This record gives sequence, C-alpha cells and structure tokens, in this order.
Amino acid sequence: MSSFIDIPADSDFPLENIPFGVISTKDNAALRPATAIGDHVVDLKAIADAGLFAGPLLKAVAVSVFSQTSLNAFMRLGRPSWREARSTLQSLLSKGTASRLRDDAAFRAAAIVHKSTVINHMPAQIGDYTDFYSSKEHAFNVGVMFRGKDNALQPNWVHLPVGYHGRASSVVVSGTPIRRPNGLIQDFATKAIHYSTCKKFDYELETAFFVGTGNNLGERIDIADTEEHIFGMVLMNDWSARDIQAFEYVPLGPFLGKNFGTTISPWIVTMDALEPFRVAQPVQDPVPASYLASGPKDAYNLQLQCDLKPHGHDTSYTISKTNLKYMYWSMKQQLAHHSVNGCNMNAGDLLGSGTISGPDDTSLGSLLEASVNGKKEVVLSADGAVKRTFIEDGDSLKITGKCEAEVDGKKIRIGFGACEGTVVPAAQL
Amino acid sequence: MSSFIDIPADSDFPLENIPFGVISTKDNAALRPATAIGDHVVDLKAIADAGLFAGPLLKAVAVSVFSQTSLNAFMRLGRPSWREARSTLQSLLSKGTASRLRDDAAFRAAAIVHKSTVINHMPAQIGDYTDFYSSKEHAFNVGVMFRGKDNALQPNWVHLPVGYHGRASSVVVSGTPIRRPNGLIQDFATKAIHYSTCKKFDYELETAFFVGTGNNLGERIDIADTEEHIFGMVLMNDWSARDIQAFEYVPLGPFLGKNFGTTISPWIVTMDALEPFRVAQPVQDPVPASYLASGPKDAYNLQLQCDLKPHGHDTSYTISKTNLKYMYWSMKQQLAHHSVNGCNMNAGDLLGSGTISGPDDTSLGSLLEASVNGKKEVVLSADGAVKRTFIEDGDSLKITGKCEAEVDGKKIRIGFGACEGTVVPAAQL
Repeated sequence: MSSFIDIPADSDFPLENIPFGVISTKDNAALRPATAIGDHVVDLKAIADAGLFAGPLLKAVAVSVFSQTSLNAFMRLGRPSWREARSTLQSLLSKGTASRLRDDAAFRAAAIVHKSTVINHMPAQIGDYTDFYSSKEHAFNVGVMFRGKDNALQPNWVHLPVGYHGRASSVVVSGTPIRRPNGLIQDFATKAIHYSTCKKFDYELETAFFVGTGNNLGERIDIADTEEHIFGMVLMNDWSARDIQAFEYVPLGPFLGKNFGTTISPWIVTMDALEPFRVAQPVQDPVPASYLASGPKDAYNLQLQCDLKPHGHDTSYTISKTNLKYMYWSMKQQLAHHSVNGCNMNAGDLLGSGTISGPDDTSLGSLLEASVNGKKEVVLSADGAVKRTFIEDGDSLKITGKCEAEVDGKKIRIGFGACEGTVVPAAQL
Repeated sequence: MSSFIDIPADSDFPLENIPFGVISTKDNAALRPATAIGDHVVDLKAIADAGLFAGPLLKAVAVSVFSQTSLNAFMRLGRPSWREARSTLQSLLSKGTASRLRDDAAFRAAAIVHKSTVINHMPAQIGDYTDFYSSKEHAFNVGVMFRGKDNALQPNWVHLPVGYHGRASSVVVSGTPIRRPNGLIQDFATKAIHYSTCKKFDYELETAFFVGTGNNLGERIDIADTEEHIFGMVLMNDWSARDIQAFEYVPLGPFLGKNFGTTISPWIVTMDALEPFRVAQPVQDPVPASYLASGPKDAYNLQLQCDLKPHGHDTSYTISKTNLKYMYWSMKQQLAHHSVNGCNMNAGDLLGSGTISGPDDTSLGSLLEASVNGKKEVVLSADGAVKRTFIEDGDSLKITGKCEAEVDGKKIRIGFGACEGTVVPAAQL
C-alpha cells in the first residue's frame, strides 16, 4: 500500500495505521473526527459529507457519526464498521485508486490539512476510566519497596488482573499542562502530617484501550468475544503524587494521588492496525480461571519510551525503554474480568494497563522504581549534571510507542504520536 | 405554605421540599425533568414551555434546561437559579397565589400527574462517582473484623475523609433489579480460590450528593464555597459482594465487589430544603487541616431506615435505623478534600457518604456488620423463623429517609421517596 500523500519513512502514521481522533483547526474551531496520515490529518466529517464512506455499513450513518464532537457514536457501531471505515480510508488515500480525494484538488485541500494547523482534542467522551496493575515487574518492584521481597506480590495478583476505578474527568489530551497537586502528606521520619505541596511527583508509563461496544448491566463479555469490543489503544501517562498516595491509599486505594491529571495520546490506534504485532503473552502460572482463558498471541510487541526534558534545557533524556509485551495480564483478560460480575461497559470507557516495567533498570516505567522511592538519583546527562529523583516543575515528559515488523516483505512501522505534558507549579496552599 | 394539591400528612414531598428528578409517563415516553408534590408529579418541561419560570435567572433558559433528558444543564446554572426554580414552583403550587397552574384546569391536568402513572429515571448523567467511608462507627466496626480493635482505624482515617472512585455506569435508579454477581472467591478455611457465585451479598445504607457546579482542572473548591456547589441529596444502596471484595481489594481498593450495581432514590432533595435540619457534626479530634475546617452546623439530622422484604413474604422487616448526623466527615469536607489537589468536579458527579452506621446494634448500615461477616444470624421475624446472615435471591431492600423539625411553629417533614431494589439470581458461571 502506498499513498498519494508523502509519508516520511519514520512516520507513526503510514497507510497501514489509520488511527482515529478528534481535531479542530486554526481556521475552524469546530471539533470533528479525523485520521492521521504521515504529517497530515484527514477531516472525516468532510469525507462523510462528500458521501465517500460508501460501504454497506457506513453509507447511511457516516454523516451522523462523523458530525459528532467525539468518537463515541462511531465506536458504538461495532468492529465491522470500524474495519469498513479503515479500509475505505486506506482506499481513498491510495496512490493507485481513483477517488475524489485523490483527484479533486479543491476537495483534497479542504479535507486534508497539515498537522501544524491542527489542534488535537480528547478523542472520546470517557464514561468510566479504570486502571489496572498488570505488569508483574512493576507490581513486584513496588511491592518490594513497601512489603519486602517475600511479600512483594499480594496473594490475589497472579489470580486476577488487579485494577481500580480512576477519575474520568481529569483524563486530558497530550499537551495539556499538569499542575503539581497539594494534599495531606506524612513525614517519613517524624510521622507528622501536614498539608503541603507534593514533593514526590512521578509519571507512570502506560498504555490504555478504549471500549468500543459495551454490555448490558448484569451480563458479561465472554473472553472469546472481547476482541469485538476493543476499539483501539492510546499511550498514557498516569501522573502520580507518591507522597499523597502513600498516606491516603489504605484501605480503599489510590485517590487524590492520581486524580489531578492523566494524559493520553490523541490518536486511537485500532486493534486491526496492531494485528501484525501480536505475540505470546508471558506464561501464566497458576493457570487463570476459565473466564480468563488466554489465546496463543494475546500480547503486543509495542516498544515504549519515555523522555524527560528538564526545565531550562533544550535536550531530552530517555528515562525508560520498555515494551507492552511484558504485560502479564492481557487486555482481553482485563475486559473479561471487568465485566464478569455484570458490570456494564460503554463506548468510550478507558482501561489502562498500569505502569509497564520491564526486566531491567532501563525498562522501569516510573521514577518511584528508578529512584527507589527517592533514595537514588537517576542520572540523565552524560556529564552527571542533570539528575532527578522525582519530576520538577517545568519538566516535560513525552511517552512514545511504536510497533515494527516485516509484513509481506515490507517493513511496517505503526506509531501513536506523542503523549506529552509539562508540570506547572502547584496552586497556593 | 399550603398547596392546592392535596398532600397526605406523612408525605415525603410537601411544598417545603420541591425535589428534582427525571420522569416519563405511561402516555409519554419522553424523559423530562419534574418535581414531586404529595402523591403527584409536576412536569417541569410543561411549566417551562408555558413560560411560568418567569424569574430573572430562569426566564431565558428554562425552556432549554428543562427540555433535557437529565438535570445536568439545570445543575450547571448554579445555586441562585436552583433557588429561583424552587421558590417559583412553591409559588405556582400555593393555594393562595393565582397562577395558570392553579386556575387553568386543562393546563393543570397536563402538567400535574398522579405518581401512579410516572416512571422515574436517573435524575442526572453521572460523570464520575466517588464513594467515601465517612462513618467512624462503620469504619471501626469493619476494621475490628479485619484487623482487631487496636488497629481498627487506619492512621489516615481521622485526618482526611477516605474515599475511592466508584463505577458511574452501574449507578441505577430505584426499582432496577440487581443481579447477584459472579467472581473469584477465596475459601476462608482451605484458602482455595474458585470462580463462583457471590455467597456474601450485602447492602450498604448510604446517602449521596450531586455536584451542581464544578471547578476547573488544577483549581480547587474552597471549603467556604462548597455549599454553592452542592445541588442536593439522594439515598443510596451500595450493594456489595463481600467475598469478591475480600479477595480483590488489596492493595488498590474495592472493584468488582461493588461495581455490579449501586441504587439511588430518584428525587434529588435540594440542600435548601434540608437547611432547617442542620445540626452540629461529631467533634473532630484531631482538628483537621485548614482546608477541611468545619462550620458549626455541617451535619444533617436525617433519619434513615432500611427494610428487608424476604423472598416469598409479604411483610418487610426493618434491619437498620440510623442517622446521617452520625457521619464524622461532612459533605462540605468531602467536596473540599476531593478537589484540594486540583481534581475537577462536574455537574452530575455523585459523591456517596459510605455506609452510615450508628452507635448501637440496631443502627448498623450493612449486614457485614450486623452478622459479623456471616458469623451471627440476624433474626427478622418475631417468631425467629425469618433470619439472614446475608441477602438471598428475591429479597427486596428499601432505604427511606426523613427529616423532621418544627419550623415557625409548624411541623415540617422532608422525605426522599424510596431507594429500592430486588436481588435476582446470578448469571450462569
């Protein structure tokens, strides 16, 4: 497949990707669905209004679903419709296929714009946001710090994908500034409790998936059906205030240590685009209950990276390189587990992976782990001058991700764009 | 105040109440905002369409906000508008004030219907739902069971209102059947873990409040301003699967043990209607941090009751009588705490109290407490034949609440209507 649009070789958005997002442009403030192709963005409302979604599933509904300010209505249509939209767009954007988009210069100029004129918005209205804790390496590393090596993993951890409800309102799109939070903190040495600005500001390198089609309350999504329900994936930074979290979280879990902001990348990459990169997930021992039974290739070889640009610097430093394939519990298992009790899922629900850490020191997905809760400085610059235990005001974090494989003799690279945020100083106490 | 509508003496909905909800009727399936008065219901869309919200704040917007299928748009207008709506309706429904509603029989018949023809719906679209754990008696009782008397309360409990994010999608309106969930359960004696139907199905007697106006991400709601942000209250049953919860909840808190269903009463009673029933909250020792500073009367004398109707029986038995005034942390403190880190609140967010237990055996707000986690049978019928440790399939639970006081020499009673649900058998494993 090749496109009449010029696509840089290292682009996250080749013709094989076709992610979905919501944009506005400098000259049109209306929010509308879009896809990304190379350095350009295609306005799906324009495509729909021109009648170019002509397939049997979308023909009658494309104008309606792509006139929305979020992707939720499109998500509700189901996977056959998502597939039809993707293949229609691949065809419309192909060099070798005649289409109004290729051949009508005025229409093309209206429907396809350069990314420099685009403002990305939240791709969906999130109903509920859940975050899992599905990386065994991360759970173990954190467990060792708080409970010692022998009790690092709680007894439930290998039996079910542990997760908790997060805050949907504070999930924001890449680029949104994140304010350092205030809260109640206990001094480790004196045990004194004081209202203070967070001193242990951290990131968490995660991925997340959007639910496309849901289930009714009281029913469940069988693990064999889960792939039909998962719309696609984004990168996520689950910003964390470790000192606020440490004092508040027993016994009901994380709350104010997390809900001041969670950043996601703007483009939702479909599971169909990620299909070539499926690999076997880690061996699960003990074998999980039947409702969590895995398939042979339920993990994804998605390379993940986090870069930190210190305040006052122009250079970024890579602070983590990890991979989604390390994740112990699969997205299918997360979704089957979440609904096994009859909990109803809806289009636009967001389910996070939890911090994805790998097996070594360079693949830790949080500073909590890399700095051993602040005890060890993480050196960033080669000369040792720039270092961090936690994140400082003005620092920018950027998470990126890419899948690479040879498909039919051609090297394919699917990316996500960036999940970025800069930390701004706390409000007055 | 008295109304031209005949209001039974023990009604939850006198002219002093004017709660807000969303209804449809047997002959009109359209969802629309409404208020309750005695045994009748007033269609607020009809009132708005007739131009009867003539006050300065609502005049221009009433048709728009009361043409919605939820109260969210009305909530966003702010407390002065909520007050104007309530006083306008009180005036329109008064015996002594000429109004089209009182004097135009045809209009009255269209706008006011008997409750027997009404179907109640969710009053608001809930963006995020948070549940607190603010009854000291409940936290202590549960803590004793799991950690012994000396460590019953966690160290953070007296310093901040402990809470966690719940699931918004499964909050349902009174009358919705609740299906017993399935999940992973650990056998207490053998430690074996199996996928099973919940055997410890419980209720939790709670109240909850709806946020009316919110705050921007990164800002906070000062405790001095919280009363302007709280729209009103409902009764809530936070159904709980104790065996699922017990295995899953460490370290990230309750998840599938809770998110299969949460029932609320359909009418939101405004804080203005509850104003006469304010009382001093329990003494807080230690004195909380400045951002949680209380006023002199931040608790409410709201009598709460839960009745259980066993399957196959026509009689209901009262299983709990408690009072919101026992709650250690006030709603104002909950809201100030929730936003102190910059977490953004929105119109329609629901914040639950947590189980409200009182000081003695008859005021326990859950069967977990009353049966000491299933170790003691709770006798319901006088002859001892009907008893429960947990809830059985077919059992119905009903939570009711009322405030009573003498105001200007007149006995006022403000109620909430019922928060009811019947448990239906689990789905196949």
